[in-house]
Amino acid sequence: MKKLNQALLTAIEEELHRQISRLDEDHTPVYHEMLTYHMGWTGEDAGKKASGKRIRPLLVLLAASASGGNWKKALPAAAGIELIHNFSLLHDDIQDKSETRRGRLTAWKIWGIAQAINAGDGMFILANLAIGALAKNHPADMVLKGERIFQKTCLDLTRGQHLDIDYESRSELSVGNYWTMIAGKTAALIATSMQLGALFGGADEETQNAYRDFGHYLGLAFQVQDDILGIWGNEALTGKSVASDLLEGKKSLPVLYGLEKEGEFAKRWKEGPLKEADVPKMAQRLEVEGARLKAQRQADQMTDLALKSLQIAHPQGEAGDALFSLAERLLGREA
Amino acid sequence: MKKLNQALLTAIEEELHRQISRLDEDHTPVYHEMLTYHMGWTGEDAGKKASGKRIRPLLVLLAASASGGNWKKALPAAAGIELIHNFSLLHDDIQDKSETRRGRLTAWKIWGIAQAINAGDGMFILANLAIGALAKNHPADMVLKGERIFQKTCLDLTRGQHLDIDYESRSELSVGNYWTMIAGKTAALIATSMQLGALFGGADEETQNAYRDFGHYLGLAFQVQDDILGIWGNEALTGKSVASDLLEGKKSLPVLYGLEKEGEFAKRWKEGPLKEADVPKMAQRLEVEGARLKAQRQADQMTDLALKSLQIAHPQGEAGDALFSLAERLLGREA
Repeated sequence: MKKLNQALLTAIEEELHRQISRLDEDHTPVYHEMLTYHMGWTGEDAGKKASGKRIRPLLVLLAASASGGNWKKALPAAAGIELIHNFSLLHDDIQDKSETRRGRLTAWKIWGIAQAINAGDGMFILANLAIGALAKNHPADMVLKGERIFQKTCLDLTRGQHLDIDYESRSELSVGNYWTMIAGKTAALIATSMQLGALFGGADEETQNAYRDFGHYLGLAFQVQDDILGIWGNEALTGKSVASDLLEGKKSLPVLYGLEKEGEFAKRWKEGPLKEADVPKMAQRLEVEGARLKAQRQADQMTDLALKSLQIAHPQGEAGDALFSLAERLLGREA
Repeated sequence: MKKLNQALLTAIEEELHRQISRLDEDHTPVYHEMLTYHMGWTGEDAGKKASGKRIRPLLVLLAASASGGNWKKALPAAAGIELIHNFSLLHDDIQDKSETRRGRLTAWKIWGIAQAINAGDGMFILANLAIGALAKNHPADMVLKGERIFQKTCLDLTRGQHLDIDYESRSELSVGNYWTMIAGKTAALIATSMQLGALFGGADEETQNAYRDFGHYLGLAFQVQDDILGIWGNEALTGKSVASDLLEGKKSLPVLYGLEKEGEFAKRWKEGPLKEADVPKMAQRLEVEGARLKAQRQADQMTDLALKSLQIAHPQGEAGDALFSLAERLLGREA
């Protein structure tokens, strides 16, 4: 299984190089360089750590193979998904004013905001061209269907992003808006990774939808789990400082539950930013008021729905096993 | 002919509303509003002046009709082209730090840079969805072909934009880079407007290419003409203050010719920004050194190539007449 994953990851990296090489032209070498730097291939500290984990394209190929298809024919879809993910990171870093990503300077810190916006736009177009390249191995109707799924997902991504930016400046927030936001920002692209893999792996419509549901719930469960760890996580495991989300004032699900409750936690929260000394007590208050348990129940429910959807999809062979194992690892259920 | 143009413009506006309404959803009303504001439909001073002239989508429909097709079936292509144009304006305004456009505040001035980047991304996705919507009335293979043309043009646009941003900060520039830049920034989208109109109007490959060439040369001629007017234009005609391009230090074609010459003009230019009092003398120097004539010859040559290409395309009927007349008007040759 590890060997399969390794083969897929190598093929993904090759396909990404192929798709991004469209920009490797005379007159604009720096433009191309911005993209290869962001992908982790060139510049200071280039290498595996700078590239990220390529989880989403891996899901595409596993879904294609587990559907009984040849994963090689789904490679451009995998590249398209990873390029969209990186497009959103490029713009996200500008929007959040993040100066580093994966331990390196962000593109806008090196080349400026104007060029980094443009590099993100370029990454986005390359993603669309990658999806279009599926026409080499698949019927035109199928490619058009894949493109529509892909583009609607992109729209969901920007809708989630809109809410995310908006929330940072608002004090009133609802749990309902939270789900809309993370459905767009996190779950949509994972759901689409699974669906496109199944589509180009030759699965029937019903199976495609089961894979999509799996990805959707996987994404939601993953995000809620991340929110819980952001407040009560073990520093050694997550690599973040404990409760850093509270310190940053991040409106994660447990915090929204706490605000809904209108108890002691909500009262203190509304008085303004927490200091480091307040954090342990506030985390405790939030737990006593039931927010941790409520969030954990949501995460468990989403996880159950994810695994049930995957069972309905009935994934085949080594890729099928890899999907179950990947899901369990992502959801922190590994023994 | 005026009646035809009016019918097309009305249909274009309706189609644009239809395409942008995809974003008219619960939870994200402000996101939708940013796009309708930028399109000139809502907010302060909404109306025709705020919307721009919709030249590009008009060219799409005229090419479709002049190719013998039903322009109504090409409407989503027209909308896609206009949406891409507006996507680039939204990001351009951030990149150039422009605070107003068509007499109104730019989106980033109202909603901030983070939201405006996201609104541009959304406009871009809507453009792609619009092109995909052509599948309702055209065969899948044709739509895929149109999408590839469209996306490669988008890549050219970002390449031109990359150079444009880069040039602003560089002192060394070549005439060769100028052509690459305006081919991407101005001519590519006009060329593609014509090509897509011809494609979805049912023209054969050769005719599609002739229309494309027409658009390409039209765009180049238009830009060079604009560069000339930016230095020696009649204030009353252009609505700009005379020679404002020199004052802004814009590296337009006549300036690049002047720099190439390495004469008095180049010497003063390299000493730093011009003052208002320097401008008339510098414009005169540039003319004496032959830059105006050289640029005018280029514009004339591009105009001739544009009109020759249009003759090869052999446009039919009222739309064909409208194309010739529009070209002559854009190129300032109207009697």
